Amino acid sequence: MYAYGPKQTSFFLKESLPSQSGRVTLYTKANPLKLDLGSSLAPVEVAYESYGALNEDGTNAVLVCHALTGSAHAADIDPASPGNNQPGWWDGVIGPGKGFDTNKYFVVCSNFLGSCYGTTGPTSLDPQSGRPYGINFPQITVRDMVHVQHALLRKLGVNRLVTVAGGSLGGMQVLEWGLLYPGFVESIIPIATAARHSAWGIALNEAARLAITSDPAWAGGQYDRQPEKGLALARMIAMISYRSTTSFGAKFGRSFQLQENGAENADLFGHSRPLFQVESYLRYQGKKLVDRFDANTYLSITRAMDRHDITRDRGPLGDVLGSIKAMSLCIGISSDILYPVQEQKEIASLIPRSEQKVIDSPHGHDAFLIEFDQLNGLLREFLS
Amino acid sequence: MYAYGPKQTSFFLKESLPSQSGRVTLYTKANPLKLDLGSSLAPVEVAYESYGALNEDGTNAVLVCHALTGSAHAADIDPASPGNNQPGWWDGVIGPGKGFDTNKYFVVCSNFLGSCYGTTGPTSLDPQSGRPYGINFPQITVRDMVHVQHALLRKLGVNRLVTVAGGSLGGMQVLEWGLLYPGFVESIIPIATAARHSAWGIALNEAARLAITSDPAWAGGQYDRQPEKGLALARMIAMISYRSTTSFGAKFGRSFQLQENGAENADLFGHSRPLFQVESYLRYQGKKLVDRFDANTYLSITRAMDRHDITRDRGPLGDVLGSIKAMSLCIGISSDILYPVQEQKEIASLIPRSEQKVIDSPHGHDAFLIEFDQLNGLLREFLS
Repeated sequence: MYAYGPKQTSFFLKESLPSQSGRVTLYTKANPLKLDLGSSLAPVEVAYESYGALNEDGTNAVLVCHALTGSAHAADIDPASPGNNQPGWWDGVIGPGKGFDTNKYFVVCSNFLGSCYGTTGPTSLDPQSGRPYGINFPQITVRDMVHVQHALLRKLGVNRLVTVAGGSLGGMQVLEWGLLYPGFVESIIPIATAARHSAWGIALNEAARLAITSDPAWAGGQYDRQPEKGLALARMIAMISYRSTTSFGAKFGRSFQLQENGAENADLFGHSRPLFQVESYLRYQGKKLVDRFDANTYLSITRAMDRHDITRDRGPLGDVLGSIKAMSLCIGISSDILYPVQEQKEIASLIPRSEQKVIDSPHGHDAFLIEFDQLNGLLREFLS
Repeated sequence: MYAYGPKQTSFFLKESLPSQSGRVTLYTKANPLKLDLGSSLAPVEVAYESYGALNEDGTNAVLVCHALTGSAHAADIDPASPGNNQPGWWDGVIGPGKGFDTNKYFVVCSNFLGSCYGTTGPTSLDPQSGRPYGINFPQITVRDMVHVQHALLRKLGVNRLVTVAGGSLGGMQVLEWGLLYPGFVESIIPIATAARHSAWGIALNEAARLAITSDPAWAGGQYDRQPEKGLALARMIAMISYRSTTSFGAKFGRSFQLQENGAENADLFGHSRPLFQVESYLRYQGKKLVDRFDANTYLSITRAMDRHDITRDRGPLGDVLGSIKAMSLCIGISSDILYPVQEQKEIASLIPRSEQKVIDSPHGHDAFLIEFDQLNGLLREFLS
């Protein structure tokens, strides 16, 4: 049941792009990870992928940070599963000649702490009980994710990051990188993100969590079989916030769905009337997440997002962002309703050495996973 | 169990504002309501309120149309329940000297067909079965709502409407008024609404519906006791779309809730951790709707919204809006993500005799229930 992400530690080298996929143990019982909120965790395994080659000094590395339901599989074909020809979530910007040029840079992406794609999280075995942690996984924070990423990079021989980049929850990690490891990062690229998760963002996450925990199949978190409807509905709620009236309008309009999307079992909910295309699409997206993600993990990570607040234990926002030493490229998306451009402008205005750019797109928040031409242009300009 | 809205037909006259509350039977078995989608319905009772006095010609009437979970109680203290001192949902714009000046106008608001505040809907008794219609209530449309409103106005002696106004689903009725009864309406005031419900709006409604129908207590629509969690979650999803990052940010920020809102039983979901204020607020809003609304009614009305499309059986959008004879004041809200200003501008651009105005507000879609000063200014200018 708890089987997501890479099943094995493997190193797979391809001709076109030297890619590696691995899983390493970074913390053990003798040397546990001290968590931000007080408890500790061991062992901690971390799954990662890398693209390009590290130079001798260990100074040409780029870290990319994934978002809520993402994985370490950021680019290219999954090296852990050569049969899986799904390109990674940022394949459009990672590769030879792309914004993160793998002829120059050693690009790393790791599955963050608390996720379910190979890194220790709620689906991992709790050594105390011999069963998956599930709902008993300790509450982690974005700062914990960053500390684990730093430990991984050190283990891989990285001495300095040219830049660290990511959108959404990925961008939250980016901002914490600028604060927790100022000597390690030359620059940061936060995209469509928040310095402190907004009340509106928390509201959406809470609606998604209640969709999961109200599903009787959730069983107080002690499920053997996923709360499928609850997790699907959580995804649907989130998907709506990731897009915009414009993008849904252009993609679906008011058309009805004549045939079901994809697999026969794509609809968990059943229906007795013709569905609008957008209804069918959302149900399909919900089912897709159920097939690849875990409900307790969704609860845990969204709580980490909601607790994200770079001012916690540090001081006023202006002082905290003002202390960031790294050069910063803060990117907003014109149609993003979840992390509006205004929020990106505020972040940029308070970081001393920063540029602020806007991706012009009708696609809403998800544009950072779509508008690769604009992103590549911005990345090339900034990194040169 | 099915007890919402006015319990009795009563006429209650007050000194300051001649208000009436009534319920009339408009269609009977011998003369049923022919529904837009084919079937027919009888009896049809309609609950309404009125403010101000009708002139002898029956030509000084204003109709205001309520939104998804609204009622006929648009202004003043509820005349049907003198003990209930809740002002109506548009009390800020209806009254002596206000935008809809009750010294001049006879203002009417009726609970629309399919709702649960006194007008026939899913909670009404089905004469065939002797039980509430519930899930078997025939699917109605916005056009049906308007036909029933017209029948009510005729019964009240109204010969002509000075204007018809409403926001959201209320605005959908307003647009249909301009098309179905062109000789009856001098002007129309659609606010923050759609000529055709958008894919994004449908998506939100579908998520809300799945929250209801996935609650085991819904029981295929045959419940004796409401699917409380499902209906509360549906409301929470909708509430998020009615506001904006700015308004939630200003109201709640990242504060934690120290004490529960209102009643002890305000939280249907339970929690084992401190809640952010916005989480507590949403749960409270969900519970409030459960106490005053009905789940099958929510399903039925949101489907009517989703089917709203003024072009259906009529022709291209430009031709349909171009055929509207009434003077039109189309009002958008600057921060509305659900029915964006752009949509209001398109409507205004296609109606021949129209003005387009924007309410400048951080409150999102709900601003039409909040920004009374701006609304009164716009209404006074337009009606003079």
